Amino acid sequence: MQRIEQHACFGGSQQVWSHHSDTLGCEMRFGIYLPPQAATQKLPVLYWLSGLTCSEQNFITKAGAQRYAAEHGVILVAPDTSPRGADVADADGYDLGQGAGFYVNATQAPWATHYRMHDYVVDELPALIEADFPASDARGISGHSMGGHGALLAALKNPGRYRSVSAFAPIVAPSRTPWGEKAFAAYLGDDRDAWKAWDASELVIAASERLPLLIDQGEADEFLVDRLRPELLQAACAQAGHPLQLRMQPGYDHSYYFIASFIGEHIAYHAQALHG
Amino acid sequence: MQRIEQHACFGGSQQVWSHHSDTLGCEMRFGIYLPPQAATQKLPVLYWLSGLTCSEQNFITKAGAQRYAAEHGVILVAPDTSPRGADVADADGYDLGQGAGFYVNATQAPWATHYRMHDYVVDELPALIEADFPASDARGISGHSMGGHGALLAALKNPGRYRSVSAFAPIVAPSRTPWGEKAFAAYLGDDRDAWKAWDASELVIAASERLPLLIDQGEADEFLVDRLRPELLQAACAQAGHPLQLRMQPGYDHSYYFIASFIGEHIAYHAQALHG
Repeated sequence: MQRIEQHACFGGSQQVWSHHSDTLGCEMRFGIYLPPQAATQKLPVLYWLSGLTCSEQNFITKAGAQRYAAEHGVILVAPDTSPRGADVADADGYDLGQGAGFYVNATQAPWATHYRMHDYVVDELPALIEADFPASDARGISGHSMGGHGALLAALKNPGRYRSVSAFAPIVAPSRTPWGEKAFAAYLGDDRDAWKAWDASELVIAASERLPLLIDQGEADEFLVDRLRPELLQAACAQAGHPLQLRMQPGYDHSYYFIASFIGEHIAYHAQALHG
Repeated sequence: MQRIEQHACFGGSQQVWSHHSDTLGCEMRFGIYLPPQAATQKLPVLYWLSGLTCSEQNFITKAGAQRYAAEHGVILVAPDTSPRGADVADADGYDLGQGAGFYVNATQAPWATHYRMHDYVVDELPALIEADFPASDARGISGHSMGGHGALLAALKNPGRYRSVSAFAPIVAPSRTPWGEKAFAAYLGDDRDAWKAWDASELVIAASERLPLLIDQGEADEFLVDRLRPELLQAACAQAGHPLQLRMQPGYDHSYYFIASFIGEHIAYHAQALHG
């Protein structure tokens, strides 16, 4: 594992590391923010999953999250959004292949070889973080858009693994909306029944753990009506009796200006669960 | 004038505008953050000047400044760092030509035609902001690196025009350090005496107004020893009796992680002067 960036930030340290992932079969990068408290104690970790086209850089440079992580004593970990490299399958378009892993474990060729972002994010990366950094096993998870979908998946598929989950403008029903339909057909194949295991609005119905969901969604988000459709998750949660706090934010779009505006409240929310 | 971006942010609006600059003879872009208070009243303005290679985007996407501007009721305006366009002179290298205007009024061919960033930043841009936005004529100015130099210049060369000035890792003595020497030779010519009118550590000696200077400088800044040299300004201020608060910040580098960590304190500092 190699440290490729290190910057003092709000009294702590924003770092970027590169390591070989056995799960993905390639080199991967992640950002980690160690708040000042990490110098003397183990801290809980909030994992952040980014959206389409992003790398490990977007969240760490644009969200302004480090201030709140320092305030609350929480480590932030932001992985890349897919396997990467010349020998990793890719596709034309921003919404499939490299930069668009969709946080699933692919079953179809040529994707199945490397595209196992769910296992990477849920198992391999936390094991590494908890072994090599001053991180406890108190985990929260959040993300944006495709990464919001990934965060909901991670929590709903792995009861007991996270103490808190939230999302910004998540893709809540990928098996019924365009981005997910394209990606799932490629990564998971034509059998739509197999897609349900990777769809938060399906998983929530039979969830064995009722971990509350906090979601912020901008009302001026250009993808709201066609591609995000939070009402589908809302209906599923109502049906299942799953606790959901869906906050529609007037005027906000899909950009990092939206994330920056509310990441402080999300980090406070996670910190309460993680330190509790 | 054309609005090309608009995003809700911390209850206000982050916008990017394009307009024709008569001073520079080209289209220019600037970012403006209007905090929520701007909906009902005129507010003071903090101008931010960015560093080498930057456009109007860097500060607005990476500094996390909007939160503090909303808290203190201050408008933020962030112009581009040089004239731009196919018919605007340029040079190889990141430190001369487009993206590297150095906030001077060039006197030498081919630069003199368009490179008049000082007049643009000090006169044309504020006139436009104060005419077309809910902005008062209470002005503060700050910036980073080359932009810190620009902010110091703007304040020292225009007594009474700014109520407050600060800088992050500024080039304080451009006529005696490599970036400035290269740029000034091109923009201002070989007569080094002419450079003194564009060098904060020279201007401060005979300043007619003793506006206090607040400067943050990272001790781990890779450009500290050779190119920034805050001790040259410190010596000049001591000689002139000019008030300077130079804060050396242990561990911090030249990046936006440094700016993000202290921009809140700078905005609070400017707000006190601007609302006072």
